Amino acid sequence: MRALVYHGPGRISWDTVADPTIEDPTDAVVRVDATTICGTDLHIRRGELPEVKPGTVLGHEAVGEVVEVGREVHSTTVGDQVIVSSISACGRCQFCRDGMFGQCHGGGGWILGNLTNGTQAEFVRVPFADYSTRRRPGALALEDAVLLSEVLPTAYEVGVRNGHVGPGDTVVVVGAGPVGLAAVMTARLYSPRRIIAVDLSRTRLEAATRLGADSAELPGRLIADLAEGPGADVAIEAAGDPDSFVLCTRVVRPGGHIANIGTHGKPATLHLEALWHKNMTISTGQVDTSSTPWLLDLVTSGRLHVSHLVTHTFGLDRAEDAYEVFSRGTDTGALKIGLYRE
Amino acid sequence: MRALVYHGPGRISWDTVADPTIEDPTDAVVRVDATTICGTDLHIRRGELPEVKPGTVLGHEAVGEVVEVGREVHSTTVGDQVIVSSISACGRCQFCRDGMFGQCHGGGGWILGNLTNGTQAEFVRVPFADYSTRRRPGALALEDAVLLSEVLPTAYEVGVRNGHVGPGDTVVVVGAGPVGLAAVMTARLYSPRRIIAVDLSRTRLEAATRLGADSAELPGRLIADLAEGPGADVAIEAAGDPDSFVLCTRVVRPGGHIANIGTHGKPATLHLEALWHKNMTISTGQVDTSSTPWLLDLVTSGRLHVSHLVTHTFGLDRAEDAYEVFSRGTDTGALKIGLYRE
Repeated sequence: MRALVYHGPGRISWDTVADPTIEDPTDAVVRVDATTICGTDLHIRRGELPEVKPGTVLGHEAVGEVVEVGREVHSTTVGDQVIVSSISACGRCQFCRDGMFGQCHGGGGWILGNLTNGTQAEFVRVPFADYSTRRRPGALALEDAVLLSEVLPTAYEVGVRNGHVGPGDTVVVVGAGPVGLAAVMTARLYSPRRIIAVDLSRTRLEAATRLGADSAELPGRLIADLAEGPGADVAIEAAGDPDSFVLCTRVVRPGGHIANIGTHGKPATLHLEALWHKNMTISTGQVDTSSTPWLLDLVTSGRLHVSHLVTHTFGLDRAEDAYEVFSRGTDTGALKIGLYRE
Repeated sequence: MRALVYHGPGRISWDTVADPTIEDPTDAVVRVDATTICGTDLHIRRGELPEVKPGTVLGHEAVGEVVEVGREVHSTTVGDQVIVSSISACGRCQFCRDGMFGQCHGGGGWILGNLTNGTQAEFVRVPFADYSTRRRPGALALEDAVLLSEVLPTAYEVGVRNGHVGPGDTVVVVGAGPVGLAAVMTARLYSPRRIIAVDLSRTRLEAATRLGADSAELPGRLIADLAEGPGADVAIEAAGDPDSFVLCTRVVRPGGHIANIGTHGKPATLHLEALWHKNMTISTGQVDTSSTPWLLDLVTSGRLHVSHLVTHTFGLDRAEDAYEVFSRGTDTGALKIGLYRE
């Protein structure tokens, strides 16, 4: 088959590789009808995730059809249309049994396109298929379905839910990339008073306003904006940047919440000298994708409109071009890119 | 009257000062029968809290008798035996109405021995007396009662409750001073599997074992101890030290809680590069003292034994000597010091 392969820092290419097969009895093989690119894939391409070995097929989001299942797969069968979750879950370890699939210690967790071959390919082996796929209803468009693999559950679970967003809240989302904007969209479900998106890119600030933020501001402007009142009830860090994290801690009111979604490569400064008495909570998290069925229902019932997150589409075989457009998102306006089987 | 007065960095003395009087109609004046010294008082003595002006009477914990009340005080009357909370609360601002008395924006919060004259004196003016005192039952010993002003509610509310300590948990308490040991005592109410106290002082480690910790260890030993398993469910920072905070973030399992009680003067490093995906929560907080009646009931009914926290007693007029013994707590074994009216 053809697949997008990582060959070491700065080098990816659309190659011919061996077809995936059933390796473990809990595996399924899925034909990829749609996949997409995540900011984390750019980190991998730059060589910033050393656990990703050269030769790995990238990608951890997909929608497609099950073409083969191992003998211990019971919940999905050949011919099923499925959403492949970014998180593979053994279903048996203590973390899985506690619902923390993202922390799976039984061989799962985030492994697709990381420790095993991923979804930016014609076919993908999906480990622990029973716990790692969700049935895709026919009414769910391909471009919406692919957002349920990771970006929507991440924004909701790690940002909105961990941040305890509620009616009447002032919510700040720092980082208006795809995950930040998905946080804006899912925060909106809880009737906040005001959602303020923050980014350094004017292109992204425009996208934020278009996709549901009440205002969109540069970081400096945010401080001035909130200086009059007690501060934000919730700040969601969706940039993966130490300065963005510090900004979140500066704008939250006493008793407020900071929910970190961002993938960080460096430490941040925690200003405990200013925060120790402020009754704040800070949460971090890996998505569990346990909210996928709930989000799926919100999308299919028309209560959550997400298709504007997909700004560009390419054929699968143009994955390299798609990476270029995606990596220059602050110029190209690219948010999520749909890569479809032709 | 006589009182312990701060005269600038490094200088305190037992002086004659003006008697406190009713300044606002919501004030009470309380005769101090018992008070104590807090670690924060040592920070003040060293000049580390610049908001405390020379001439301020120190102390924010007391038990005594109401001797005068303003015309708008309704819940307490002359002759009442009361516990004076470290937190004064206006009762009317939005934070007070939300139960966050420690964040009071109506002129209260932690003001005693900070922004107004405090409790290490023969008499103290207690602002907002209705919301800042609790009736002391006759059955409650003086030395137990004075622990309800701050140390017990702080350890419980900011440490144990914010940290979500529960049955079967492994709880690490970093810093085995009075607040840390009060956290050990109140954590015990929730039937944890194991409480590990951590300190650099062997004297304090011995105290921790005596007062209810299952084990007491030096920081390096803790890492080795927990290396086998998934880590602690809860880590409570009760030292106010950046390294102690980092230790807490290292020993907590995925999905665990870090509750910061410590008063910090410097930032700490938050290793987001290791923590972003670990489903942790970090909480900070100022005590509200809203748990005081509940803790009081636990003490009077014999379910919570706290009197061993008071290791030394002095007459009020020997407050300067008491500061010396308290400040050398890691040598003297001093935890809380009772200062009593003779």
